[in-house]
Amino acid sequence: MSQRDKATARRGMVYLVGAGPGDPGLITQRGLELIRRADCVVYDYLANPALLQEADPRAEMIYVGKKGGDHTLPQAEINRLLVDRARAGKKVVRLKGGDPYLFGRGGEEAEELVQAGIPFEMVPGVSSALAVPAYAGIPLTHRRHASLVSLITGHEDPTKPASAIPWEVLARSPGTLVFLMGVKNLPEISQQLLKHGKDPATPAAVIHRGTTLAQRTVVGTLADIAARVQEAGLTAPAIIVVGSVVELRPQLNWFETRPLWGKRILVTRTRRQASAFSALLREYGALCLEAPTIEIGPPDDEYEGLDQALHRLEEYQWLVFTSPNGVEAFFQRLFASGRDLRAVGRCRLAAIGVATAQVLKRCGLIADVIPQGFSGRRSGGQSAPP
Amino acid sequence: MSQRDKATARRGMVYLVGAGPGDPGLITQRGLELIRRADCVVYDYLANPALLQEADPRAEMIYVGKKGGDHTLPQAEINRLLVDRARAGKKVVRLKGGDPYLFGRGGEEAEELVQAGIPFEMVPGVSSALAVPAYAGIPLTHRRHASLVSLITGHEDPTKPASAIPWEVLARSPGTLVFLMGVKNLPEISQQLLKHGKDPATPAAVIHRGTTLAQRTVVGTLADIAARVQEAGLTAPAIIVVGSVVELRPQLNWFETRPLWGKRILVTRTRRQASAFSALLREYGALCLEAPTIEIGPPDDEYEGLDQALHRLEEYQWLVFTSPNGVEAFFQRLFASGRDLRAVGRCRLAAIGVATAQVLKRCGLIADVIPQGFSGRRSGGQSAPP
Repeated sequence: MSQRDKATARRGMVYLVGAGPGDPGLITQRGLELIRRADCVVYDYLANPALLQEADPRAEMIYVGKKGGDHTLPQAEINRLLVDRARAGKKVVRLKGGDPYLFGRGGEEAEELVQAGIPFEMVPGVSSALAVPAYAGIPLTHRRHASLVSLITGHEDPTKPASAIPWEVLARSPGTLVFLMGVKNLPEISQQLLKHGKDPATPAAVIHRGTTLAQRTVVGTLADIAARVQEAGLTAPAIIVVGSVVELRPQLNWFETRPLWGKRILVTRTRRQASAFSALLREYGALCLEAPTIEIGPPDDEYEGLDQALHRLEEYQWLVFTSPNGVEAFFQRLFASGRDLRAVGRCRLAAIGVATAQVLKRCGLIADVIPQGFSGRRSGGQSAPP
Repeated sequence: MSQRDKATARRGMVYLVGAGPGDPGLITQRGLELIRRADCVVYDYLANPALLQEADPRAEMIYVGKKGGDHTLPQAEINRLLVDRARAGKKVVRLKGGDPYLFGRGGEEAEELVQAGIPFEMVPGVSSALAVPAYAGIPLTHRRHASLVSLITGHEDPTKPASAIPWEVLARSPGTLVFLMGVKNLPEISQQLLKHGKDPATPAAVIHRGTTLAQRTVVGTLADIAARVQEAGLTAPAIIVVGSVVELRPQLNWFETRPLWGKRILVTRTRRQASAFSALLREYGALCLEAPTIEIGPPDDEYEGLDQALHRLEEYQWLVFTSPNGVEAFFQRLFASGRDLRAVGRCRLAAIGVATAQVLKRCGLIADVIPQGFSGRRSGGQSAPP
């Protein structure tokens, strides 16, 4: 069994993973797990590159930049890259924005893998076609409005004679229309729909960088949406929604109306502490910029003092920890010396602050003393009211 | 700040969360986080109830059973329930299969919340409309096949005179058609499409319980799909796909062709160990039934022996741990007595097996001895070759 496990582990495989629409919270569990375990991540232009930081630092990260159809690497080369890395026994994550099988050319890449005999798994993602309107307050279906949704690639030039887009069918559809990758062609898209008989008063919305904190939405009618979008200066990436469901936005616009929406907040805590704090602010709609003004690092004397103390720990009666960072640094250094918690022996333990005591407790040690009052101020410094 | 935090924490809120199509790996990060933090989860019929186990055991779990349109609780009551719990200051997760805004009546529930002045957040899910075909080897778009996808609710009776479904538009659409919740009406759906001029040779597929290990797929043409589905006995929940993309299935069918697909495997390890093992088997396509034949529990004498030993731990020269469970039980009991790792004192440590040593290491203790050979067999038991 363990030998077979090894053989399986060495078999290369490609995972076609949908990254979702931009909000990193919208990646699937399975997708995130695979990114973390990947030997190699081959990724397109992503609305939010934060997901890439989840990969193992040793993983090979290859950008094949697909943005609005402009490829840094031609499709044939991308296919070759996937096959090549999988044949070398690697677990390859092919990461695409939104869902790989909805205008993502995932089907074509999967065909290439099958032809090359490479096993693959397909991990669907939350599609921008659905999630971006939802973050703009627009449900695509609604009993009073639409029980049919059509999703169309807006990337194709709508004026070319052999257009694959059935304008007449779309113009006559009573459902919601969603165009992906179409903002550049918006004037032609709205022209074609009008020309084929769609009501000029049909509500329309264009959402730029939807589901991210840079989301911007412009609302109008089929007659004026192109002009409004130009006036507002919205560019790709954007999603176009046409249909009466757009009327629900004033009521259902939960995302752009959160209390800290539009606020930029500079977070100056240490890198590690900042992320939890930023996550909380982001939930209230703020855009956080992390610029740590504090860095926790090794002491200038390169642990000389600490090492000496650790060496004769049994001579101490008390260990006083002044911060969670202090607890962690102390035990890291102790373990690095090849010793373990038994070295603490019968020392009594004091923790300055409840947070410090909690970190001690996670190490299996209970503080004997936690002072009731304490302060981060140096004694002898500037005097201040208590 | 901490006072304001408290005020915010007390403010009730509703999260409309998409549970995804059935495979629990397809829940989003944000959705899972909210389920874990919820005070109350109001859920529909879900293709996979495993997600509910992620909730806090103290959370109130309310089933409002929506399956193929049959509500255990009428929509007005569901709305009232959400408003009521949120007004009581609770964090309420409204969990719906797939995506709440695609035929999920999420829009209507959101409207009710807005009218009641309850803040809400919308967390899109992976829609069954996209993911189920993907797990059956069918990408909805493909350069050679379709650059337009229409999603239709198949729940409505297609023969009723005022049908909201624009059959002529659908029949003339060159794109892929996906009907959700339509398997019961499949004979009428295919009849209507044929009557309005759709080619009877158009490939069609019906996927039952897609993305789960009970997935079954039937493929045919628009002319014979209804008969084939009846013959195979497929029922709801199912997704119907109509269009030439169905032709890609023989090549791209990765899910139903995995090495252990269709195998039922009984996993007899302890509940806790079983889940990791089952997860691995599931990745290879197996359906795992967990029936633990081992249970780790407290000793018959209710810890009397262990407590005596712990009480005079300083008299021991060696602690010998025979299993990871042993390490955990030992330290849990030690901590329960109000003492901490310092009680181990200068005892030397032996670990039987590398896994046991690893658990010790996580506790901050390094085994002094790990024997090279060991066996789970009782001495004096049945003799066996070495």
